Amino acid sequence: MTRQTDLAFAAELDAHDPLAHFRERFVIADPNLIYMDGNSLGRLPRSTVTLAEDLVQHQWGERLIRNWNEGWFTAPERVGAKIARLIGAEHDEVIVADSTSVNLFKLVVAALRFQHGRSCIVTDNLNFPSDLYVLQGAIDLLDKQHQLVVLSSPDGIYGPVAEIHNRLDSQAALLTLSHTVYKSGYIYDMPAITAAAHEAGALMLWDLSHSVGSVPVDLHAAQVDLAVGCSYKYLNGGPGAPSFLYIRRDLQDVLRNPIAGWMGQRELFDFELKYQPTKGLRHFLTGTYPVISLSLIESGVELLLEAGLDNLRAKSQRQSEYLIDLWEEFLKPLSFTLNTPRETERRGSHVSLGHFEGLRIDQALIHASDHSYIVIDGEFDSQLTSPSSY
Amino acid sequence: MTRQTDLAFAAELDAHDPLAHFRERFVIADPNLIYMDGNSLGRLPRSTVTLAEDLVQHQWGERLIRNWNEGWFTAPERVGAKIARLIGAEHDEVIVADSTSVNLFKLVVAALRFQHGRSCIVTDNLNFPSDLYVLQGAIDLLDKQHQLVVLSSPDGIYGPVAEIHNRLDSQAALLTLSHTVYKSGYIYDMPAITAAAHEAGALMLWDLSHSVGSVPVDLHAAQVDLAVGCSYKYLNGGPGAPSFLYIRRDLQDVLRNPIAGWMGQRELFDFELKYQPTKGLRHFLTGTYPVISLSLIESGVELLLEAGLDNLRAKSQRQSEYLIDLWEEFLKPLSFTLNTPRETERRGSHVSLGHFEGLRIDQALIHASDHSYIVIDGEFDSQLTSPSSY
Repeated sequence: MTRQTDLAFAAELDAHDPLAHFRERFVIADPNLIYMDGNSLGRLPRSTVTLAEDLVQHQWGERLIRNWNEGWFTAPERVGAKIARLIGAEHDEVIVADSTSVNLFKLVVAALRFQHGRSCIVTDNLNFPSDLYVLQGAIDLLDKQHQLVVLSSPDGIYGPVAEIHNRLDSQAALLTLSHTVYKSGYIYDMPAITAAAHEAGALMLWDLSHSVGSVPVDLHAAQVDLAVGCSYKYLNGGPGAPSFLYIRRDLQDVLRNPIAGWMGQRELFDFELKYQPTKGLRHFLTGTYPVISLSLIESGVELLLEAGLDNLRAKSQRQSEYLIDLWEEFLKPLSFTLNTPRETERRGSHVSLGHFEGLRIDQALIHASDHSYIVIDGEFDSQLTSPSSY
Repeated sequence: MTRQTDLAFAAELDAHDPLAHFRERFVIADPNLIYMDGNSLGRLPRSTVTLAEDLVQHQWGERLIRNWNEGWFTAPERVGAKIARLIGAEHDEVIVADSTSVNLFKLVVAALRFQHGRSCIVTDNLNFPSDLYVLQGAIDLLDKQHQLVVLSSPDGIYGPVAEIHNRLDSQAALLTLSHTVYKSGYIYDMPAITAAAHEAGALMLWDLSHSVGSVPVDLHAAQVDLAVGCSYKYLNGGPGAPSFLYIRRDLQDVLRNPIAGWMGQRELFDFELKYQPTKGLRHFLTGTYPVISLSLIESGVELLLEAGLDNLRAKSQRQSEYLIDLWEEFLKPLSFTLNTPRETERRGSHVSLGHFEGLRIDQALIHASDHSYIVIDGEFDSQLTSPSSY
């Protein structure tokens, strides 16, 4: 295949882009801004502006407390059911509330208590650090008999697949991984890894934060037990918007939410003093959720459902291939490394580049962005050579 | 004192109300609506409409990820510092994030681990049920050696003060109570109860949800250790807006947040794999907070600071006295009971009435409200005779 890296080729890709008209569905205040941070905060859909006005001025301002019965009580399930369609789950298997960290905490603690007698949580060093902090906190809290096993990626790019298979034994309570790795864009083989966890008797928990809305996910096909994910990246839900959690239906009533709260109570308006969790996923709600931030997710998800994940994936792969070709022609000779798998099926929607002067280059780009309108995302760690994920 | 219960007296109170002009600062779409649910969802300040537009359209839509460095990273402390002025705390002792239930969970678990060797949490049956659920969940999680002692109010109105004093012994790890009781409006004597907890070596945690913004609170004068509170009631923060937590400065670095997360990490952009909590209150943040719902709290709090808590308290007491006089003249003969203390200093900003046909009366009022624009709050439990708190 001849690689094409000139501007004419890019213009041709744009001209044949079936999703191009979706650009008009977003607020793009400054058309010169090149925004490379959708992995950190998705752009604002136009429909969300209208929704925000309705939420604040009509629902809160006019309907007041009555709006709890006119949409707010059902918002966690309603938005959850739409996200479910993006990740191959049933409508009653996904609910939205709390942050990704709090949801992960609830699921991890519930899983460890359910897996009585098994002492290990297995994960890897490509997982988002916040997930590792939650795991460390959960183990520290429960007792010292649990153990956190953090397997090392062979190269900082690919997941330690062989090591995961080796480490899954009769002591493994839970395997938890980021499906798409934030730093390298590597995608785990969800069905194969989940099957390996199950073979060892472990539960499988996927963090979908860097997958949902950007790559197709089919939780049911892979028989996944548990998942969490973020709504403010590719779902365009707004800054810090609440997270979703998934529990496969047959596990919903056997797992216990460790943070028992009123929103998970069976007959909440009875104001009984004893906690009696309601059936199904809703008992994994805890306190009253931030209605406005939660509700604003809905219009972003609807946009993705309208565009279709398969279409998005195809476009994303075309863009990534083009970017990698550009790297090969222009950046590789300047000692930039590609810290992302070349195989399309093992790569998410982002491409990660590295350079031994990565930090200085990033700072220069950020400085330049004050003038030339480029917003980039530079992330650094001590393991890779100052990678910048774009 | 002669009781005056006619409309002329009410009009006179209104005419001399120094806070009357604050009505114009709120969105009041329907001037005929009589809204009696500020305890459940405060009204929408006009300034919040402008703030919401700015947050969505400018901060998110235009500034995008850059706004994290232009206000979002500091929002938990900035809003917290303003709430601190309403409750007699220092600016760096209050932070906003998560729901009241999640914040209570974090503080209760941290307190129990800090109070190693003491086995009891002491509370009462006037506490909000959600708080009791969180306590039950925390004890269930930690081990079975802890014990939850729920003391009973002598009459469903007043706190079981004598029983609390009796029950505080060398086994008491934590005393936690609602400062203003949601069902009766009873207010605990914060300095006296806190001193009793300290004398026994217990930590004191107050839930300020039904106090903050409606009655003056001075945490420092009472040397309170820990507190949580809600922002969507009297703070007018919006539906389900995040909650605040208070930790006295000297306890901030000795207590550990059991839900370790990225937002509490020391150098979060180093992406270290090991959790190393930052100094001060910020390590009690966990994941990324819902920025829009959180930020919207600020304008409501500013309105309260402008009005002044002492002025609000004085008006609230005049209104409550008038309401109780109305009850005495019109409702008491119809077998309504007053389930609220008569002494003003033991009563919050709400008045609770009961009736043996309370449920049916409430349903009739709610039905009538469809036509005559009254929004009331009817809460029922099995202990009191169907009280309705207005």
